[in-house]
Amino acid sequence: MHGVKAMVHEQDILIFLEENLSKKRYRHSVNVCRTAESLALHYGCDPEKAVLAGLLHDCARELTKPELVQFAVKAGLGAAEAAAEPKELLHGPAAVYLCRSLFNLNDGDILAAIRYHTTGRENMSLLEKIIFLADFIEPERDFPGVAKLRRLAFRDLRRALIAACDTTIRYILLKGMPIHTDTVLARNYLIREGAGNTQS
Amino acid sequence: MHGVKAMVHEQDILIFLEENLSKKRYRHSVNVCRTAESLALHYGCDPEKAVLAGLLHDCARELTKPELVQFAVKAGLGAAEAAAEPKELLHGPAAVYLCRSLFNLNDGDILAAIRYHTTGRENMSLLEKIIFLADFIEPERDFPGVAKLRRLAFRDLRRALIAACDTTIRYILLKGMPIHTDTVLARNYLIREGAGNTQS
Repeated sequence: MHGVKAMVHEQDILIFLEENLSKKRYRHSVNVCRTAESLALHYGCDPEKAVLAGLLHDCARELTKPELVQFAVKAGLGAAEAAAEPKELLHGPAAVYLCRSLFNLNDGDILAAIRYHTTGRENMSLLEKIIFLADFIEPERDFPGVAKLRRLAFRDLRRALIAACDTTIRYILLKGMPIHTDTVLARNYLIREGAGNTQS
Repeated sequence: MHGVKAMVHEQDILIFLEENLSKKRYRHSVNVCRTAESLALHYGCDPEKAVLAGLLHDCARELTKPELVQFAVKAGLGAAEAAAEPKELLHGPAAVYLCRSLFNLNDGDILAAIRYHTTGRENMSLLEKIIFLADFIEPERDFPGVAKLRRLAFRDLRRALIAACDTTIRYILLKGMPIHTDTVLARNYLIREGAGNTQS
């Protein structure tokens, strides 16, 4: 075996996920992994990296808030910032710490894709884009427009990502919750990328 | 006469607006001024400041792009930033320069309300909130939900401002344009203000 996969044992990851996630989230993780692999093959991204990032993106999703804060701080977040964030925004950074410490996974591209999969961010790498989108369109996702988005994902990655950001923002507006500026910056960057101008 | 109005001649402003704005935008400016005055009286804000900020908020709206860039830079924007911004985002800062140089208007609260009326921003003053909202609900504004928003404006300022931000963001999503992060930060702050937590 070559590449990053040689150093990380997929079987170890699956055992960890089975022990630490609900059945539904375990299935979601495998689904994201397979969807990310397909997108990686379609767009010329490293499929082994997509498999690992897809499998591991939610590995910290069911930890307690104190655990999430502790691990997110170990992954580089400030202590005050981590304590103030909701659980949903901590599981990306916390997963980075778990990947490093449990699976000896140190590939920067994979870790960034895991870290930012919830909000997206400005100027994402191809792997970050693929994990963000795979999380959105995996086969068990069900929301108005998901079928259209699945087709768009393999036709126009940039437009599919903008549509995914739009869906997220509309959902948050409806819920009356704060919108993460990283999602807005991700979307703004993708729009300007299409217009050939990425100056923010 | 007392206060800031004593130093600024409303008649001079009206003449300037008549000469530099279309009839429609002149009427809009007077409408925003009257709506802002009502909101100021309702919420215990200085009505003279609301009148001046309302009248002047769009005074730079019909300048050319080179004029807008020049005046926005004189109001403190970086040259590169100003050149990259669309006209819509320059007329607030450019108006600040016009207010200072043409009308000797130097009241920081009024100038901030004019500067940030397009996007809003985090932690707005009461006057800033009033001008942002008056611009949205003045009598000639016509969009789905405006009547409801007009009533809400006099019942619950915070919720009306969140609804105005939501309307702006939904409109921008529909148009496929970039969302200004200041509008998102304004909305997030207002939501957290309601939850008694303004930490961002």
